[in-house]
Amino acid sequence: MKTAKVRLFVDQPLGQGQSVVLIREQAHYLFGVMRLGLGDMVALFNGRDGEWQAEISETGKRGGELICTTQSLTQYDPPDLWLLFAPIKKARTDFIVEKAVEMGARRIMPVQTAFTNSDRIRQDRLQAHAVEAAEQCRATFVPDVIELQKLDRLLSDWPPERHLMFCDEARAGEVAGLPDLPGPWAILIGPEGGFSEAERSRLSGMGNAHPVALGPRVLRAETAVVAALTVWQQALGDWR
Amino acid sequence: MKTAKVRLFVDQPLGQGQSVVLIREQAHYLFGVMRLGLGDMVALFNGRDGEWQAEISETGKRGGELICTTQSLTQYDPPDLWLLFAPIKKARTDFIVEKAVEMGARRIMPVQTAFTNSDRIRQDRLQAHAVEAAEQCRATFVPDVIELQKLDRLLSDWPPERHLMFCDEARAGEVAGLPDLPGPWAILIGPEGGFSEAERSRLSGMGNAHPVALGPRVLRAETAVVAALTVWQQALGDWR
Repeated sequence: MKTAKVRLFVDQPLGQGQSVVLIREQAHYLFGVMRLGLGDMVALFNGRDGEWQAEISETGKRGGELICTTQSLTQYDPPDLWLLFAPIKKARTDFIVEKAVEMGARRIMPVQTAFTNSDRIRQDRLQAHAVEAAEQCRATFVPDVIELQKLDRLLSDWPPERHLMFCDEARAGEVAGLPDLPGPWAILIGPEGGFSEAERSRLSGMGNAHPVALGPRVLRAETAVVAALTVWQQALGDWR
Repeated sequence: MKTAKVRLFVDQPLGQGQSVVLIREQAHYLFGVMRLGLGDMVALFNGRDGEWQAEISETGKRGGELICTTQSLTQYDPPDLWLLFAPIKKARTDFIVEKAVEMGARRIMPVQTAFTNSDRIRQDRLQAHAVEAAEQCRATFVPDVIELQKLDRLLSDWPPERHLMFCDEARAGEVAGLPDLPGPWAILIGPEGGFSEAERSRLSGMGNAHPVALGPRVLRAETAVVAALTVWQQALGDWR
């Protein structure tokens, strides 16, 4: 059996002998860009059924078909961790989404804070970016990217059982570690301008929000995302 | 006193009353791009004397002068940690240099491994990138970026007292923590293709090389850099 060099997310059921029909873009990618043909293997995942090796059984300009042969990875979901971040410049926002997938966030939630520059995102583009990142890093899970929402409103409806790791650059250099509390968590990374005083005092007043310092240097938002996810995964997540 | 909004690295001595002469590019940046003028304040650092507030005392198209007034940050050097990495695509290599500065590496060393794609780097461009990153993250220290060298040769002359944290993506999912050993350290991040068998066995044979796993997912090189620096700084560095 040849080994699959290409990994593809498909929004269809996967399983032994299951046939998977390709849409036009996928056919273009596999046959046009990657130059695969009949009998070649592709690794498929759908975010639910693990990863499957599938053989190309039909090719075409507008579509094609594959047949699943063997499961190569069982489904693996990251811990119940949300990532909340204030969107920044386009390339760096893309980067944050990519890193959140690699580092194992369950849900990606762009939030609008008092000092956030952008007031809209392209949710569909960011979701596609999350799919690509999962294809690259051999993940079997793809986090949902939620539409941009106001931090204020999100905190008003905050689920009481979910802890919030609140990374505040105003605390750079302080010693403020992550408390060892089980249960669902979220990480909140502020915008380049930091949080407003109102936001900071609101967060301080929440019983389940925990300020955490990320070292003595000021980190850019996308660096803080990877660093915070590392701290969390090491202490409470699937790096243990 | 007005507060400096601009931060600039200058390769000149800084101290009370010290005058600093600008070169053409710096004058263009301060007066042309940032539109600063006589009497405006700039934050200066040189990698040795901390950060100083300096007042613009002379402006011109080809130069200018500033006078240091007060020290705003004392000099702060990161721990004795080298970052070794295999250069990848241009934008992502730039990113690695930027992140190494933010995360507090003392020295940045691109290395050529068996599976490294590129066989040269633009050392001067990467060094300039490190300076820019330090300007951005309020660091007072700028790590040296060393010319590309072969990993093989570097390991042949490896200083016996320096520990090496060796991040091997082949170990994704294993539990392999960082040993709590004092002294100078280095972090080695492999190329996208991983290490060769020869490299892996050579590293395994070194008494001061310690394999460390970075979670269950495969990380891209630039993600691994931030994650590994977080792990090290938390356990042994200046995040404690």
